[in-house]
Amino acid sequence: MKIAIIGTGFAGRTLAAGMAERGHEVVMGTRDVAQTSVRTESDRMGNIGFAPWALGQPTVRLTTFAEAAVGVDVVVNATAGHASIAALTEVGAINLAGKVLWDLANPLDFAHGFPPALFVKDTDSLAEQIQCAFPDTKVVKALNTMIGDLFVNPKIVAEGDHSVFVSGDDPDAKSVVTDLLTSVGWTDIIDLGALGSARATEMLVQIRLRMMSVLGTPIFNFKIAR
Amino acid sequence: MKIAIIGTGFAGRTLAAGMAERGHEVVMGTRDVAQTSVRTESDRMGNIGFAPWALGQPTVRLTTFAEAAVGVDVVVNATAGHASIAALTEVGAINLAGKVLWDLANPLDFAHGFPPALFVKDTDSLAEQIQCAFPDTKVVKALNTMIGDLFVNPKIVAEGDHSVFVSGDDPDAKSVVTDLLTSVGWTDIIDLGALGSARATEMLVQIRLRMMSVLGTPIFNFKIAR
Repeated sequence: MKIAIIGTGFAGRTLAAGMAERGHEVVMGTRDVAQTSVRTESDRMGNIGFAPWALGQPTVRLTTFAEAAVGVDVVVNATAGHASIAALTEVGAINLAGKVLWDLANPLDFAHGFPPALFVKDTDSLAEQIQCAFPDTKVVKALNTMIGDLFVNPKIVAEGDHSVFVSGDDPDAKSVVTDLLTSVGWTDIIDLGALGSARATEMLVQIRLRMMSVLGTPIFNFKIAR
Repeated sequence: MKIAIIGTGFAGRTLAAGMAERGHEVVMGTRDVAQTSVRTESDRMGNIGFAPWALGQPTVRLTTFAEAAVGVDVVVNATAGHASIAALTEVGAINLAGKVLWDLANPLDFAHGFPPALFVKDTDSLAEQIQCAFPDTKVVKALNTMIGDLFVNPKIVAEGDHSVFVSGDDPDAKSVVTDLLTSVGWTDIIDLGALGSARATEMLVQIRLRMMSVLGTPIFNFKIAR
């Protein structure tokens, strides 16, 4: 499968590497290829620069937002939530049309410090805002409820015995994402319903931030015990 | 321990019965004792009326809001979130002063139908509003993240292998609630920090409502897999 990942931060890289390792053709989109490709300094979270990371990923191609989605099957939004619609606008509605748009982002608002608030909550979601902005795409929300380390390696926590939620209005698009999740080891994939259910998973970011403080690590996940 | 439970709905009753069964002295507070004590009709959720329920709980005393908290150690807010501060005002600030106020409620707003929105979210919480209204109490938030069936019977789901969160500003008050939770079989009791962390657990009600639809039952709970 051809997968475009929009955004070159930790979340996007982790998914890019995992999908490339499983034989998918992965391209990453960034605003400024020249700048991103030579970035050597680590970010505030301690993640290495894009350039040294990319050395270990020879099959992952870096290109512009505008070029990334051309000819792919799945587009992944791995940008920061506040910047997602602007970035996807650069990717281009015409390049997104008809495609699965897998949204990983959360609507974090750091305007008032840490912990961040959410700029949309229970009456709307970032996923729905993206669907509204790009009505010809098929938006699916998934993997926004955990740290990137777990995306393609669920077994690093509790032998993989925890949950991932999938929200979306298009059943076929949800199947594409569900199949990709299954291929990387997810076993408890919960179809939460229509895209509006992303409101509920985006709001989980608040308890995640609190749990990070309690546990001293972001390496944990939610499980629905039943 | 002497425990006053404010509110006679399903949540309050379940905790009342469980605590009474373990030898605690339980009193329940209601606005209109005469009316509540003879109520035989079931509620919209199919829970039996208070009168037939009370027949099975001979040690649980029913009294007024104003009288309920006199002389007890712990006061439990088991009223609907939108009515909590009004009910606790009837209980009386003077009767609440110095006591542990265990808050079970969620800030549900049904004004726009189902699923309900939340009338406070990530910038405030019902628990903090209660603490602010009754500054001489020690508010502890816990058990607001699950259906009442699990309150005193965690083992009915996954042999009890799931989590309960405790938020509060007073360590001793949190210890009182934690000890009560331990006494009814809870093993994964997570101290989430100061009372402000209740914002995160109150927001969980949204994913709970979605999961109820997916599973067709409210009998499940969150576990933090780590």
